[in-house]
Amino acid sequence: MYPRAVARLIEEFKRLPGIGPRTAQRLALYLLSAPREQAERLAAALKEARETTVYCSVCGNLTDVDPCKICADPARDHSLLCVVEEPRDLLAIERSGGFRGVYHILHGALSPLDGIGPEKLRLKELLTRLEKGEVTEVILATGPDTEGEATALYIRRLLEPLGVKVSRLAYGLPVGAEIEFADEETILRAIQGRRQIR
Amino acid sequence: MYPRAVARLIEEFKRLPGIGPRTAQRLALYLLSAPREQAERLAAALKEARETTVYCSVCGNLTDVDPCKICADPARDHSLLCVVEEPRDLLAIERSGGFRGVYHILHGALSPLDGIGPEKLRLKELLTRLEKGEVTEVILATGPDTEGEATALYIRRLLEPLGVKVSRLAYGLPVGAEIEFADEETILRAIQGRRQIR
Repeated sequence: MYPRAVARLIEEFKRLPGIGPRTAQRLALYLLSAPREQAERLAAALKEARETTVYCSVCGNLTDVDPCKICADPARDHSLLCVVEEPRDLLAIERSGGFRGVYHILHGALSPLDGIGPEKLRLKELLTRLEKGEVTEVILATGPDTEGEATALYIRRLLEPLGVKVSRLAYGLPVGAEIEFADEETILRAIQGRRQIR
Repeated sequence: MYPRAVARLIEEFKRLPGIGPRTAQRLALYLLSAPREQAERLAAALKEARETTVYCSVCGNLTDVDPCKICADPARDHSLLCVVEEPRDLLAIERSGGFRGVYHILHGALSPLDGIGPEKLRLKELLTRLEKGEVTEVILATGPDTEGEATALYIRRLLEPLGVKVSRLAYGLPVGAEIEFADEETILRAIQGRRQIR
C-alpha cells in the first residue's frame, strides 16, 4: 500500500530491537513529514558513527581514538580491571563516580540457549591482558541475572590458574534487573561492597 | 562519555516521536554492533524514501507517482471523497476493504493548544477539489477524539455554502482512540453506518 521506498524504510526500522510494526510505521511516516534536514541528519549521523567509531583494541569499548581515553589515562588505576558485558554498563559505572580503574568489555554474556558460548565473548583478549601482570584485581561486573552470574562463574574458573584476585559486584544490585537501569547510588554501593570470590 | 559521533547518533534518535533517552541509546549501540550493512541499509532507505516520495498533488497521500495510484484509478468512485487526518488513516481504511471512493489527507487535525489552526491543514486544496463539482459526498473520517471532532465540525461549516452532501464516520469507532489502531471490522461498520450531518 505504501510506496516501495516507504515500505522499505518501515522494514528497516522493524529490524531494530524493540521496534514493532506500528512504531516502525510511525517513525518512517514522521521522518517523511519532518523537515528534510532531520532525515538527512539522522542518515549522516548513522554513517559518521559507523565510520568514525571503533572498538578499543585494549578494552573493547566504543571509541574514536584507539586506545580509548580510559585505557590511555595514566591517572586511572591500571591494576584494577572491571569486566562488564556491554559498553552501556561501562557508562553506568562511570556515571556512579565510584570506580577509578580500567575496564574490559565482553560484548555479551554466556547464554547457551541463544548460542552464545565462551568463544563469542572477548575472553582471549582478557587473558592476554592479564598475562602482562599489571592487573592485580579483576572485578566481575557482569549482570545480576542468570547469564551474568554464569559468565562471572565461568571467568572466575578461567582465571584460577593466574593467581589474580577476583571479586564480584556486591548484591546491592536488584536481582534480575540489568546494570544499565540501576541508579548511581546502587552502583556505588555495589562497587564498595564487592566481595572476593577466590 | 560516548565518542562524539555516537552521542550525535543518540541525539538524532531522541528527536523521533516516542523515543526516550534509553531507547535512543539502545538503538544507536545496536546499530554500531550490528553488521555494517544494516546501518548502511537504514541510512540508504531513509535517503531513498525522502528522495523518491512526494505528497500526491491531488489528495496529499504519500506516493512515488503523482497523482497517486488511488487518484489515478478510473475504477474508484471519484464522486465520494473521504477526508482523513494522516496517510496512516487512509491505509487503515483501505485495509478494511469497505471504501471505493477517493481520499483527501489533511495532514493534521485542529488543535489550538498545539498551535494547529485551519491554515495548517490542507483545506484550501479541499475546496479547490470540491469546486470542480465531481464530488457529491464528503465523508469526514477525522479521528473520534476531540481534535478530530472539532476538525469535522469546522469542515462541515466550511462546506455548507457548497451544497455537497457531508457525512461523518459512524461511532462504531471506540471514542477517544485513534483510527490507525481500530480493527478492520470496526472501520468497516463505521463506513457503512456513516450518518449525514447536513
